[in-house]
Amino acid sequence: MDIKLDIVQSHQRISPYIHRTPILTSLMVNDLSGAELFFKCENFQKMGAFKMRGATNAILQLSDEQKQKGVVTHSSGNFAQALALSAKSLGIKAYIVMPSNSPEVKKKAVKGYDGIITECEPTLEDRERTAAQIQQEKGATFVHPYNDFNVILGNASVGKELLEEYPDLDLIIVPVGGGGLISGVALSAISFSNKCKVIGAEPYNVDDAYRSLQSGKIEYNQTTDTIADGLKTLLGDITFNIIKNHVEKIIRVTEEEIVEAMQLIWERMKIIVEPSAAVTLAAVLKSKQEFKNKKVGIVLSGGNVDLKKLPF
Amino acid sequence: MDIKLDIVQSHQRISPYIHRTPILTSLMVNDLSGAELFFKCENFQKMGAFKMRGATNAILQLSDEQKQKGVVTHSSGNFAQALALSAKSLGIKAYIVMPSNSPEVKKKAVKGYDGIITECEPTLEDRERTAAQIQQEKGATFVHPYNDFNVILGNASVGKELLEEYPDLDLIIVPVGGGGLISGVALSAISFSNKCKVIGAEPYNVDDAYRSLQSGKIEYNQTTDTIADGLKTLLGDITFNIIKNHVEKIIRVTEEEIVEAMQLIWERMKIIVEPSAAVTLAAVLKSKQEFKNKKVGIVLSGGNVDLKKLPF
Repeated sequence: MDIKLDIVQSHQRISPYIHRTPILTSLMVNDLSGAELFFKCENFQKMGAFKMRGATNAILQLSDEQKQKGVVTHSSGNFAQALALSAKSLGIKAYIVMPSNSPEVKKKAVKGYDGIITECEPTLEDRERTAAQIQQEKGATFVHPYNDFNVILGNASVGKELLEEYPDLDLIIVPVGGGGLISGVALSAISFSNKCKVIGAEPYNVDDAYRSLQSGKIEYNQTTDTIADGLKTLLGDITFNIIKNHVEKIIRVTEEEIVEAMQLIWERMKIIVEPSAAVTLAAVLKSKQEFKNKKVGIVLSGGNVDLKKLPF
Repeated sequence: MDIKLDIVQSHQRISPYIHRTPILTSLMVNDLSGAELFFKCENFQKMGAFKMRGATNAILQLSDEQKQKGVVTHSSGNFAQALALSAKSLGIKAYIVMPSNSPEVKKKAVKGYDGIITECEPTLEDRERTAAQIQQEKGATFVHPYNDFNVILGNASVGKELLEEYPDLDLIIVPVGGGGLISGVALSAISFSNKCKVIGAEPYNVDDAYRSLQSGKIEYNQTTDTIADGLKTLLGDITFNIIKNHVEKIIRVTEEEIVEAMQLIWERMKIIVEPSAAVTLAAVLKSKQEFKNKKVGIVLSGGNVDLKKLPF
């Protein structure tokens, strides 16, 4: 299996349907951090998050018969929108199972992309049960938001684009939720660089990935009390396996550090990122010594926030 | 007098000190407007607004003796920051007269750039009186925020950059406050295009420029009750003269239309713009028929907002 070729082909496959997002820099934030930072702006991606890449790659790999019956997923937010929009632009149906407590702005967006929403209880069990039911009733193909190799290969294009424009990056920092983004970026790092390491950033309050790396098995969160609502999900077996082998370490940050980094990005860079994206800069600012004078790619994973509920 | 050469030389002069800002597009906003829009992101400019261009050009034209004694200006916000930052990076003093009711975030920013602030009453008379006093006491050179030909020539680079990247623009829309930006862009339009027209956008509540074009003389505002705090100033004789000759028309927008356009830019484009910048898109969305199928440059003049005081 040739991972590099898989990533290259996935990138080609999805390119007509995604934005090649800009990479921004800020002298001011460089000064503050002591590192040279390159912000990959997936907040500017279609529907506002990197998830568009993985969703599109997964759908494009379906057979014609599968396409006719549509796709189904469960997602608390950005992946739901991504699958709905990819499906819409390819003319197929998307059934979206969303926890009843998902942010209203995200439900509205899914509907805007013609996604067919079924609400469920906000537990992993009920999400999976409801999705399985739709799979059976409609014959729709289930696409997992992150624990799916085609999704991971689509997301890998984020790392590939970063390394194409800045081949000498020392590090790339990526938020860790279910691990679908960081495992894709890690596969790109080993494929397109001979020195670039990948580091994860995660809120203390949902540090399941950090603890999983410590214990060697997938750990669970006792609570999901974090402002970074995209990072509450657990690792899957596929993503955990890639992270274990190819991610250097995971840096944990507090809720205050996330909000501070988010405010810094908004105020100084004038771009809108969601809390889940800001964990990356929070991790750099917290561990300055580690990043000092390094060239660091920062993956700003998304920008879907409810402007009526800002933390500052 | 060769305006085109003046603009080219001013652009060269300031280039080492300013950002060449990106020009963003949004399929979603194009769909909404029925036009093809090219957003010139001066919100990403140093200190967050186009004013950096004019301020830098004015300072770079000073003699060594003048530089030694510093510069002084009165400004309610962005120009204050711009002059302070330009002066700082060139190692000279900037005395800034600010109305006592200026947003706290803007005063803080001026101090951050080592600007020496003197507060005054929020009237044009007191601003001018206070600045004149400092001029006399310190021997500092007064730089007017907009009614200064070097400032206008510096600002003209915004239009030049737009037309370099998109030579076939039909229109450029620019916010109108004191007129320093729109007159610069209008001079670039006649210099670098043989078809591009320039249109102004202005809040109804401070529509002095609109009324000035109607009456043929500089009109005043009875109130300055608008969310677009950068657009409260009156035209000067230099800017009015250029606007009269080279600006096609001015479109007026309501406060609601400004907030709606601002929210659209934040939510859909994921970038932070101030209300004064959003008047441009508000004007396009209000007069769709006029812009239909046209290629339109939109000058997003700045992004300095107080995140604690958002209108949505």
